[in-house]
Amino acid sequence: MNVQKITTADGSWTAVGDRRIYVNDLIDAASWPDAKMTVGFARLDKGESMDISFPYDEVLIVTKGSYTVRTVGGETLTAGPGEAIYLPGGTSNASWAEEDTEMVYVANPPEVYAEHVAASAGA
Amino acid sequence: MNVQKITTADGSWTAVGDRRIYVNDLIDAASWPDAKMTVGFARLDKGESMDISFPYDEVLIVTKGSYTVRTVGGETLTAGPGEAIYLPGGTSNASWAEEDTEMVYVANPPEVYAEHVAASAGA
Repeated sequence: MNVQKITTADGSWTAVGDRRIYVNDLIDAASWPDAKMTVGFARLDKGESMDISFPYDEVLIVTKGSYTVRTVGGETLTAGPGEAIYLPGGTSNASWAEEDTEMVYVANPPEVYAEHVAASAGA
Repeated sequence: MNVQKITTADGSWTAVGDRRIYVNDLIDAASWPDAKMTVGFARLDKGESMDISFPYDEVLIVTKGSYTVRTVGGETLTAGPGEAIYLPGGTSNASWAEEDTEMVYVANPPEVYAEHVAASAGA
């Protein structure tokens, strides 16, 4: 694998269920088996929410809008452009877009991410 | 480790040599031994450059300005706000800030990152 530029213009957007949440995996285990991290983009319309509970660590880097994560303990963390939220694997959190929001996500380990996405798609 | 919000206001900025390049590790192996990725922020003044050659994979997510990476093969990739560059470990690249630039970087594996930074600091 060589150096790769990753933009929202690459790859394809996939809607999450029937919601206005769209994800776009650019560096993933299927395309880049030697990559040590998964990288993608997400877009969420204002008000859309997700429950976040997965076995891999993920970093959300907000590039537009505003995104809030609420932990099981009730703490809320809101990140704006240029800020990031680190989600350790095994935690469980509610999250939602305060505005129309764009994020870059980086997940590790990539093979755990791939297994989880495949299992979720088949559910 | 719980969910963490990461901003440039946290942690401390370290200058790289005598250059106007500043890095700020927020999630690292020393502070968070169970984290599966290292996360930090970098700021570079316009025109500042770095040779990038390291044993870990890194993703640079540009949040402000414009950043160019030139591979050994001579290809140049320029990323602006909201875009990312994936640097596989073991590659060697020149890079520079086209403008005053801010980036979030995510590196893996975190222990390889920590060893590399420690060795570089001692050089």
